[in-house]
Amino acid sequence: MVLHMSSLFLRTLREDPADAEVPSHRLLVRAGYIRRVSPGVYTWLPLGLRVLRNVERIVREEMDAIGAQELLFPALLPREPFDASGRWAEYGDNIFRLQDRKGADHLLGPTHEEMFTLTVKDLYSSYKDLPLSIYQIQTKYRDEARPRAGLLRGREFVMKDSYSFDIDEAGLDKSYQAHRDAYVRIFDRLGFHYVIVEAMAGAMGGSKSEEFLATAEVGEDTYVHCTNCGYAANVEAVRVPAPEPVGWDGVPAAHAEDTPDTPTIETLVNHLNAHHPRPDRPWSAGDTLKNVVVMLVHPDGTREPLAIGVPGDREVDEKRLGAQVEPATVEAFDEKDFARHPGLVKGYIGPGALGLEGTTGIRFLLDPRIAPGTRWVTGANEPGKHVLDLVAGRDFEGDGAIEAAEVRFGDPCPNCDHVLEGARGIEMGHVFQLGKKYAEALDLRVLDQNGKLTTVVMGSYGVGVSRAVACVVEGNYDDSGIIWPRELTPADVHIVAAGKDEPLFRAADDIARDLEAHGLTCIVDDRKGVSPGVKFKDSELIGVPTIIVVGRGLADGKVEIKDRRSGERREVALDSVVESVLAEVRGS
Amino acid sequence: MVLHMSSLFLRTLREDPADAEVPSHRLLVRAGYIRRVSPGVYTWLPLGLRVLRNVERIVREEMDAIGAQELLFPALLPREPFDASGRWAEYGDNIFRLQDRKGADHLLGPTHEEMFTLTVKDLYSSYKDLPLSIYQIQTKYRDEARPRAGLLRGREFVMKDSYSFDIDEAGLDKSYQAHRDAYVRIFDRLGFHYVIVEAMAGAMGGSKSEEFLATAEVGEDTYVHCTNCGYAANVEAVRVPAPEPVGWDGVPAAHAEDTPDTPTIETLVNHLNAHHPRPDRPWSAGDTLKNVVVMLVHPDGTREPLAIGVPGDREVDEKRLGAQVEPATVEAFDEKDFARHPGLVKGYIGPGALGLEGTTGIRFLLDPRIAPGTRWVTGANEPGKHVLDLVAGRDFEGDGAIEAAEVRFGDPCPNCDHVLEGARGIEMGHVFQLGKKYAEALDLRVLDQNGKLTTVVMGSYGVGVSRAVACVVEGNYDDSGIIWPRELTPADVHIVAAGKDEPLFRAADDIARDLEAHGLTCIVDDRKGVSPGVKFKDSELIGVPTIIVVGRGLADGKVEIKDRRSGERREVALDSVVESVLAEVRGS
Repeated sequence: MVLHMSSLFLRTLREDPADAEVPSHRLLVRAGYIRRVSPGVYTWLPLGLRVLRNVERIVREEMDAIGAQELLFPALLPREPFDASGRWAEYGDNIFRLQDRKGADHLLGPTHEEMFTLTVKDLYSSYKDLPLSIYQIQTKYRDEARPRAGLLRGREFVMKDSYSFDIDEAGLDKSYQAHRDAYVRIFDRLGFHYVIVEAMAGAMGGSKSEEFLATAEVGEDTYVHCTNCGYAANVEAVRVPAPEPVGWDGVPAAHAEDTPDTPTIETLVNHLNAHHPRPDRPWSAGDTLKNVVVMLVHPDGTREPLAIGVPGDREVDEKRLGAQVEPATVEAFDEKDFARHPGLVKGYIGPGALGLEGTTGIRFLLDPRIAPGTRWVTGANEPGKHVLDLVAGRDFEGDGAIEAAEVRFGDPCPNCDHVLEGARGIEMGHVFQLGKKYAEALDLRVLDQNGKLTTVVMGSYGVGVSRAVACVVEGNYDDSGIIWPRELTPADVHIVAAGKDEPLFRAADDIARDLEAHGLTCIVDDRKGVSPGVKFKDSELIGVPTIIVVGRGLADGKVEIKDRRSGERREVALDSVVESVLAEVRGS
Repeated sequence: MVLHMSSLFLRTLREDPADAEVPSHRLLVRAGYIRRVSPGVYTWLPLGLRVLRNVERIVREEMDAIGAQELLFPALLPREPFDASGRWAEYGDNIFRLQDRKGADHLLGPTHEEMFTLTVKDLYSSYKDLPLSIYQIQTKYRDEARPRAGLLRGREFVMKDSYSFDIDEAGLDKSYQAHRDAYVRIFDRLGFHYVIVEAMAGAMGGSKSEEFLATAEVGEDTYVHCTNCGYAANVEAVRVPAPEPVGWDGVPAAHAEDTPDTPTIETLVNHLNAHHPRPDRPWSAGDTLKNVVVMLVHPDGTREPLAIGVPGDREVDEKRLGAQVEPATVEAFDEKDFARHPGLVKGYIGPGALGLEGTTGIRFLLDPRIAPGTRWVTGANEPGKHVLDLVAGRDFEGDGAIEAAEVRFGDPCPNCDHVLEGARGIEMGHVFQLGKKYAEALDLRVLDQNGKLTTVVMGSYGVGVSRAVACVVEGNYDDSGIIWPRELTPADVHIVAAGKDEPLFRAADDIARDLEAHGLTCIVDDRKGVSPGVKFKDSELIGVPTIIVVGRGLADGKVEIKDRRSGERREVALDSVVESVLAEVRGS
């Protein structure tokens, strides 16, 4: 195929779009791949669509290779199955809802667990039908609160989602591993750097869960990894190892002390060091127990206060907390809420007021570091008073544990005790052992070998297809523009007719036709009245990996081949250019 | 590719689905191609998706061949451009509307004129950029009042829509013709019988408009055609030639007569023949003028009564009327409406009460047959009274003409006066000279050769891609099931292992692998414990054009090749089956 710039529906922009926050967004718009329609909703212009189709092809090939079968569900979905699974309520504001002319409720599918489950239930009835893996590459919708970064967080986007159906956990393990292996091949082919990290398994049913994160500063996910043992996890999923319980022999009884004007950890530590110095070392924030109260909003709209105890040197991490309390969402506990709970003394909240057995009856969950035998300074539930020598397990207990404290780069690895390093990434894939959650909710059961009905075990696997286009750019660009990997590029070769003379244009076109005959796709910049400088700039911005310049050298039977990534140029004879380019395209 | 029935995600059904009204719906569900999710919303199972992709491929190849460029717009569209074009209001209940979490209005795109227009406006600015044809193959949405017939009238469906942009009408004519030619090639390849008919050009701007109708009894469109001159038109678009005006010399003055109890045409004609016999021939319904009042509902919600005068032997055709008054819709003029207009005497309405100048002020439009000089019997606006010898042009005039009377097979051809024949069809394609409607509404102008801003001239061209899958089936089935044309079939060959012995299964698989090596896709029915009879039935239902039966003959080194369409069977040697099948597949 030959695409002529003179007629290609594409305009490059010299200026960055005003709303572009990240390189991929900036470059994909400037180079004419996508155009914004509304926040988080984009049009794929011809070259962009070609790249998107390349991603789809790679994903499809690797899914087919593991025996997964492609089908296609609608995006417009009726409410009923989502009521059965509980997600109609759980989704809250995050989905698009609508009614048809008869008043029936629908949603635009953000993910298709229910539909896959119901369709398998419709078609299959026996263990003999399993295992089964089915997938779709489909347009999905989420009503994001903050669509951002172009294709990275959209409201309409393309995903590959697949689901595995097995008769038992052993089958699920195999299906999970097959998908995980396929994902490794997919992301290797897509050509950006990624890590596989442990991920949250979700509130219900799920067990194993891993994410494929493209490493990128602009990513919304933070992960940690251990350079010693290879452990890697999304910070949401990091598990803090609970310290061994220690005895409290010899620890004095808890005692309340006046600590006037110490509503913050910093003021408290200063006060302690001034008025209650420790013999061994100064007090630090880590010696204090901070009790944070938030408001949970459950899917049915009910509001429940929740108290979280964390060491005073750590904040409660919003995303980690959110992942723990899903499907509830977290709101701040505001002045009105305090007014409704006079037992909570702001700045001086202590365990005595908390817990289902406490004076306020507010559920109280503890960071694993607040282990039995550990000793804390914390609020005394009176203004200007704190309790010292308060021992977990002796003087107070929580109603359970929660992993909501921030994870810090430098924290010990939960696996080997080495230190954790961290970085940011973009979630590109997710493999997830769903277990029986949806099969139970929607009653997907089949007859087992003994003729008994047994609930099917499911896995769920997603790849962000349109997001991958942006991710590839995040991993492949320079100051001049995009640098497409071979498998993704919208064309194999970009031929620039650099000059005004007709023979240049003819030669550029001849080369393109020759390459087309070998199955290659070429862009030919045949624009008249556009300077070679502008054409070069556009070719670099667009980012096809091989650029041929047909210019002054043509008089001597020479053209130039330029490698977009390395910038290397070499002059070749006109009659060997096709051979040279073919070697380059096929060799790389 | 080899698809094994033992693991293919497909279940055939012995029974017709309860809601299936038409053959394609019945067969596509029974053969495991699609499954219903909600009214007019379907899932494409693996074999169905393969057929859908084949249709897409054919459409894409032919669009690319005329130089149209593919891109992809979102389905979730903001309200603003549709306000600018007026269609946000015009669509009424026919589109899905929704709000995002911030309360912004959106719709699910039923068609994309506005988005294409705005994107060209965004990218292009000069006559040098034109002509341009761009297209997408995309999922669209319409909130149909009566989704029906499976894929034939859906609420979520796949369409190819393209738009051409030209500097002038001459350019539009060329672009239109190129699309029309491409459509002929597309529909020839799809393999069903179709006709090209004149279609309604719409209320605004458009000029030329033609539809590609698949001929089918189950179709919702009625068209007429002339076997003499080749004229063909959707009944909505048939234009009745106005008769030459005749003089009214010698026609007596109009005179009201008592016609008690004659509220219907039939009672009136009987009364006339009994009490006012004509000398030349008996009175007939065609001598009477019937004045029908309906209520128009405009997009802004205002209601306007409209009177239509037609010869008494013809009904007002709902679809023809609807097409004429678009974007208004038509409702019945009910008892309450009559109560509000006491000047209308039900059953005896006459021209005196009608027209902007009449006593009721209701707009009055006349069928072209009510030509100047024609003479009518019609209501006298008094109960039990009619007027005779009322002459159009002498005694009354309408406010204009309207083509709303029913078209009858047997009517004279408007082109050559031969008789029109008629049939039903399914709208599969539409080519339409939009003109400047959208370009004006959205201000799409470019600089012309003289440096002056000029409004771009547009064409719009659609193919029902998912609907085509059903249409192909409507044109290709028998009592046993579907019979796919070669270009559409989900597999090239269906191989049945007919028996229980292992060698049969091995031989079936070997043949499939050999054919796969030649680029063919095979279904292998390798199900154990399923009788040959059931396998044969399934192969006929699924409808792959070539069936190979590996059965008893295998012991003698023979297999059977069956042609699904003709039913012909022939035995061939096992070692020549691949060659035979390749010849058949490639030759046809």
